[in-house]
Amino acid sequence: MIHQETRETVCRLHAELVRYNLVAWTAGNVSERVPGEDLFVIKPSGVSYDELTPEAMVVCDLQGELVEGDYAPSSDTAAHAYVYRHMPEVNGVVHTHSTYASAWAARGEAIPCVLTAMADEFGGEIPVGPFALIGGDDIGKGIVETLTGHRSPALLMQNHGVFTIGGSAKAAVKAAVMCEDVARTVHVARQLGTPIPIEQHHIDHLYDRYQNVYGQRSHL
Amino acid sequence: MIHQETRETVCRLHAELVRYNLVAWTAGNVSERVPGEDLFVIKPSGVSYDELTPEAMVVCDLQGELVEGDYAPSSDTAAHAYVYRHMPEVNGVVHTHSTYASAWAARGEAIPCVLTAMADEFGGEIPVGPFALIGGDDIGKGIVETLTGHRSPALLMQNHGVFTIGGSAKAAVKAAVMCEDVARTVHVARQLGTPIPIEQHHIDHLYDRYQNVYGQRSHL
Amino acid sequence: MIHQETRETVCRLHAELVRYNLVAWTAGNVSERVPGEDLFVIKPSGVSYDELTPEAMVVCDLQGELVEGDYAPSSDTAAHAYVYRHMPEVNGVVHTHSTYASAWAARGEAIPCVLTAMADEFGGEIPVGPFALIGGDDIGKGIVETLTGHRSPALLMQNHGVFTIGGSAKAAVKAAVMCEDVARTVHVARQLGTPIPIEQHHIDHLYDRYQNVYGQRSHL
Amino acid sequence: MIHQETRETVCRLHAELVRYNLVAWTAGNVSERVPGEDLFVIKPSGVSYDELTPEAMVVCDLQGELVEGDYAPSSDTAAHAYVYRHMPEVNGVVHTHSTYASAWAARGEAIPCVLTAMADEFGGEIPVGPFALIGGDDIGKGIVETLTGHRSPALLMQNHGVFTIGGSAKAAVKAAVMCEDVARTVHVARQLGTPIPIEQHHIDHLYDRYQNVYGQRSHL
Repeated sequence: MIHQETRETVCRLHAELVRYNLVAWTAGNVSERVPGEDLFVIKPSGVSYDELTPEAMVVCDLQGELVEGDYAPSSDTAAHAYVYRHMPEVNGVVHTHSTYASAWAARGEAIPCVLTAMADEFGGEIPVGPFALIGGDDIGKGIVETLTGHRSPALLMQNHGVFTIGGSAKAAVKAAVMCEDVARTVHVARQLGTPIPIEQHHIDHLYDRYQNVYGQRSHL
Repeated sequence: MIHQETRETVCRLHAELVRYNLVAWTAGNVSERVPGEDLFVIKPSGVSYDELTPEAMVVCDLQGELVEGDYAPSSDTAAHAYVYRHMPEVNGVVHTHSTYASAWAARGEAIPCVLTAMADEFGGEIPVGPFALIGGDDIGKGIVETLTGHRSPALLMQNHGVFTIGGSAKAAVKAAVMCEDVARTVHVARQLGTPIPIEQHHIDHLYDRYQNVYGQRSHL
Repeated sequence: MIHQETRETVCRLHAELVRYNLVAWTAGNVSERVPGEDLFVIKPSGVSYDELTPEAMVVCDLQGELVEGDYAPSSDTAAHAYVYRHMPEVNGVVHTHSTYASAWAARGEAIPCVLTAMADEFGGEIPVGPFALIGGDDIGKGIVETLTGHRSPALLMQNHGVFTIGGSAKAAVKAAVMCEDVARTVHVARQLGTPIPIEQHHIDHLYDRYQNVYGQRSHL
Repeated sequence: MIHQETRETVCRLHAELVRYNLVAWTAGNVSERVPGEDLFVIKPSGVSYDELTPEAMVVCDLQGELVEGDYAPSSDTAAHAYVYRHMPEVNGVVHTHSTYASAWAARGEAIPCVLTAMADEFGGEIPVGPFALIGGDDIGKGIVETLTGHRSPALLMQNHGVFTIGGSAKAAVKAAVMCEDVARTVHVARQLGTPIPIEQHHIDHLYDRYQNVYGQRSHL
């Protein structure tokens, strides 16, 4: 089988979507680029999270065509493929309909940066992408156009849900977890008044520090 | 015992109601039609979810009368029976008081279709059925009249909770899980403003695609 | 040790408070009257839910004085004792600070009966008791005066939390679970508008039916 | 290794942050002063909660400099160190971005004391500290200046999250758990109206009683 290690990583990371309550039933998906190949590993379509195994994962080329796998690829495969074709620095993509982030998406409203954790992780607001129908390149285009030149590894597709990108699938999953976390906290803050904005130079300082200092280099 | 396989399926699916936090204490129930018979398997009344076993499930005829079982059938059995009598294409029925869906039901308000996942799964809004008292055919009638000719496999019975139908008990459970998921997300979206409507032709396109393309045919 | 069976029941029922997220840290407690004795078994004070064993439970007389146990009894023991002294039909008492019910309590507002499940279980609104300080009979008096002649087995002590009573500790725990469940659903319903009231004669009909028909008699 | 017992305590208490949903991904941290030494044990930076072991914990001096450990210390180490230098009675410090408390923090709003459990545990409102950037002594100073002379063991750092202190790491973790619990309940109470204030002399009475009577002395 093609790249067992990537299959295992992608399989295991789906469990994080469940653990953090980002997905219901079979919704949501994680993919990762196969190192050194024009391929990526992604979740099969409509299969329950309990039944996911490394072997059940499917491999697609960068056009989103199935290369190896017993199942049809995720119905969001075209969007993942578009991102890998147009953003060579991206090696992982995640999609969820997590509750609070999707609520901002339903209103077509960006999440304002009013938490230091958002400044750290997203470097500012989490932006909104266009309404786009599934089945062609529209979702992928919406992701790439919105995130290109933006600090945030997450965006809210209008009326739809969250897409996140990263240097690895793990980084993209982290962005999906943190996106829902800040979407919820800012929602709750806004329910009873107006959160205090963080000044832009403070956001810049926090983002720069977090990206360059935080964490264990050996664990990146 | 009558149809062990259906007993096992119905028993196992009750665990999904617990896993997705759709039920408290002994509330909620799942039933499935026994293939080729005028019978269905349903949860016993007032028994805790921890104590459910395939053997504890009860079998009723389509009048809701107990045919086999050590326990009294669920107090909602008459409603399930009414649905099976009047909707021959339905093989599974689920009932919950899940929080967000029941909150829409308490206001007698349909959940508007402002998420692509709702368009996929429900094909539009999730409708409201009448206020109806337990104990006769009123709930069953309310379900059948509201869902007949409607795309949605779920409805909100006013001041009461959710009923869902499906080609199998698993499909009805999925509809109950997704109903609460979208009820919550649309609630959260509405708390801070007005969600953007999705145009009807987009809803139609999404619904058609999801019903015909999504998932693994072998897993339906 | 006095009445091992009651110790085991009371110990086991505390796990339900944890399972339904009704308690944080060491808050909350369950007690049950020892059959045929002027005694009751209650949780020790300030002991973590993980460390509770049947042996760690303490036995008090109906004045709330410790009769048997290695630990000091719950700081709410006086309230439990007062209830047992004044309501001979009550054999179980539960106290929690569950989130949604305590929020209604903080506003001193009864939970209106706008769900059929509330009519079933509580027979109407869930009432509010007075503000009362811990340490004497004030909380116990507030419970007894508010619940005497009321259908509801639950009340909200103002600025404090929930007390529930029952014919057994299990029944009181069920009331505590259902109280939080309906407190949350009615809260959510009210956030986006006004729930539809249920007519009094319908509430009466539902309450009467549920108290007399529902469940397995052998499991009461 | 330096003080295995403190390493084990600090490691184990991190699991409570997960259990009570106070943290997402690698956010949050617990530390405890090493008895009789000018040292404290703290979580390593950017390591997942699943991978935490007593051995992975790091030991720092009161300047926040690494003394022993294979990992870099938490990025919040300077704040913990500042507290230990300036509050000799404090032996445990906890930091989280728990949702409801952080929402109050995003608005820069203290949590008013409208629950008897808040009077017990916090002795009044939970105060707000200044906006402060990570990387120097500003957060530590904000904590010490806000909590000095205040009954509350918790504060909300503006736009950031929660810091709590205690006579032990366990006491600080308890304060973090209870802080989120009351932040959530008061938030929910405020969503539908105005909670009833508790008179100051009642708050004083409750606080005094809880600090001096509650719990098992042998378990403090």
